[in-house]
Amino acid sequence: MRTIICNTVNNSYPILVGCNLLQDPSILTKFIAKRRTIIITDSNVAPRYLQRVLTLICNVETIILPAGEINKTWQTVEQILQQLIANNHDRHSMLIALGGGVVGDIVGFTASCYMRGIPWLLLPTSLLAQVDAAVGGKTGINYAGQKNIIGSFYQPSAVITDIAVLQTLPQREYIAGFAEVIKYSVIADADFFAWLETNCQPLLQRDLAALNYAVQRCCELKAAIVATDEREQTGRRVILNFGHTLAHALEAATNFQDFLHGEAVAIGMVFATKLSLARGYVSNLVCRRLIKLLTKFGLPTNIIKKPGLYAKILLHMQHDKKSNAGKINFNLLNDIGSIRLETVELTSIKECYFGKSKHIRVSG
Amino acid sequence: MRTIICNTVNNSYPILVGCNLLQDPSILTKFIAKRRTIIITDSNVAPRYLQRVLTLICNVETIILPAGEINKTWQTVEQILQQLIANNHDRHSMLIALGGGVVGDIVGFTASCYMRGIPWLLLPTSLLAQVDAAVGGKTGINYAGQKNIIGSFYQPSAVITDIAVLQTLPQREYIAGFAEVIKYSVIADADFFAWLETNCQPLLQRDLAALNYAVQRCCELKAAIVATDEREQTGRRVILNFGHTLAHALEAATNFQDFLHGEAVAIGMVFATKLSLARGYVSNLVCRRLIKLLTKFGLPTNIIKKPGLYAKILLHMQHDKKSNAGKINFNLLNDIGSIRLETVELTSIKECYFGKSKHIRVSG
Repeated sequence: MRTIICNTVNNSYPILVGCNLLQDPSILTKFIAKRRTIIITDSNVAPRYLQRVLTLICNVETIILPAGEINKTWQTVEQILQQLIANNHDRHSMLIALGGGVVGDIVGFTASCYMRGIPWLLLPTSLLAQVDAAVGGKTGINYAGQKNIIGSFYQPSAVITDIAVLQTLPQREYIAGFAEVIKYSVIADADFFAWLETNCQPLLQRDLAALNYAVQRCCELKAAIVATDEREQTGRRVILNFGHTLAHALEAATNFQDFLHGEAVAIGMVFATKLSLARGYVSNLVCRRLIKLLTKFGLPTNIIKKPGLYAKILLHMQHDKKSNAGKINFNLLNDIGSIRLETVELTSIKECYFGKSKHIRVSG
Repeated sequence: MRTIICNTVNNSYPILVGCNLLQDPSILTKFIAKRRTIIITDSNVAPRYLQRVLTLICNVETIILPAGEINKTWQTVEQILQQLIANNHDRHSMLIALGGGVVGDIVGFTASCYMRGIPWLLLPTSLLAQVDAAVGGKTGINYAGQKNIIGSFYQPSAVITDIAVLQTLPQREYIAGFAEVIKYSVIADADFFAWLETNCQPLLQRDLAALNYAVQRCCELKAAIVATDEREQTGRRVILNFGHTLAHALEAATNFQDFLHGEAVAIGMVFATKLSLARGYVSNLVCRRLIKLLTKFGLPTNIIKKPGLYAKILLHMQHDKKSNAGKINFNLLNDIGSIRLETVELTSIKECYFGKSKHIRVSG
């Protein structure tokens, strides 16, 4: 087991990464102490892991939320609040989020605003949550068709990341998580990118040693970035959104139905890299390496164009939280491991979307 | 004009206290910079001060909320969120809360969770808000009959406190604010308590020099306490709740209809002092001085007992955010200027409520 410390303004907390951590009662007990707890999970995760965790904790309540991004709403937050109030939970109670990014976002937000903030533990069960969503304290819910438009920065007491649970993840969801893994290598660690090129096969076979390294490395990279800019104020944390300007808009434009988040991020990273190529920032080789790696992992790299889709995507990009007065900010690429943030004009975005940019002749 | 700095973990911000600050365009302009802004006020405050403030700011939208604690709900937060989204406001936009504690609580909470936090300015217009609610970054809304059960700690960019606006406050509301003024003197500054005893008349006549001193002193005392314990973790900030354990319960038990917050606090402070007297912590003299001062200001000091009221109050006290596993915590008094936090058993509370405590023979 490895412990990565995430240092933030209000507190520093440990991210524990290892195999079979959810079978070890001493770990959970240590962080819960003698608090009353509510485990909150969803209808997908509950049948797989809830019973295992329940055997480790005394005096615990359970809430099973309906699964899916579509339920990341205020109504779901209310469901938790009502139980907290009905059972007279006070500021000393602790929420435990057991699940993927959606569960973590909902539980974290609820913890941040119940009685102005109660402690919470995060047990991420999807690859995407383990390498990305669980690190950095972003919480949120969707509202009025806007993803994470309501939320907070609110760090958990600890993150307990058991990579053993990844063995039972559905294949599509497992694969989608690698989009964020690849993102971390692209934005911050060229050596890790090369390691992923070499270790694609063991990772696809869910080799525990390879997975352990990949998850730990992502957590380290993200924790280091978050520590420099917890609240996205200095601009440093913005690099985490490489690929996400398009990805968020694509997810919203397709009503969160067509793509898993990671799939949209894979497409968004290629899009941002093609924009970088059109501006002469990266070589054709870099673009090819990225597309090749994503493809080896079985991730999509292109938008399948449908009538009206571009207009919808554009509208959502202009609503993005990182946009500023209508201009669209993109993380562009200088090279593997090096990001530059730029405002991109609409004509360039349109040319890139419709494949009309100069210089772009990418073959796999 | 005097500037009091409130130092908190995430940021330090100024509280400006003076006369006619809302007539000075340079002050608001300084904090707004070139941001898009939304002024949010309520139907009581709008006719009195909105036009004045609008003349000072360019490029501003307005939201007028229905007035009253009863509207401190998620639905009101949604009303603001919908306009933020509809008008495509991003993280650089700023909310401006113009009003009393209710407006500040709603706007601060909305600012804290829109896009995970946008900047806000606070222009408190009631005495109670100026001396208490505006300092310390507590935000919140009511839910399921529980006061401030949803909220956050989220500091504004600045607080601009214009004591001139107090001249037009309705008398009952003005008087109620002095409960919190007296509270600050009781919990932290015996000299200030003596000053209030001497200066009751000029304050009741709304003398600007006396008001200016009283408001500044409260802001200084509160800012100093908040700086030591922003999130109510070390116990220091809890002393601010002197009188509030009973007050919150009394307000809730009477459906927020019978008492202004300050009136409930006045009653709660006397109740806590009588509990302290029953335990032998304070002298009869201290109890008499407090009751006398509150009475001089025209504030209530006793609960008018109605059938069933005690049971309701007790239930709400057991739900209080500062309660811990059903025990009821009270700020008790050692002396004017000195607080002790204790867990009080139900029998003592009941005896004190029904006037059966030993030692309590207080005459005015």
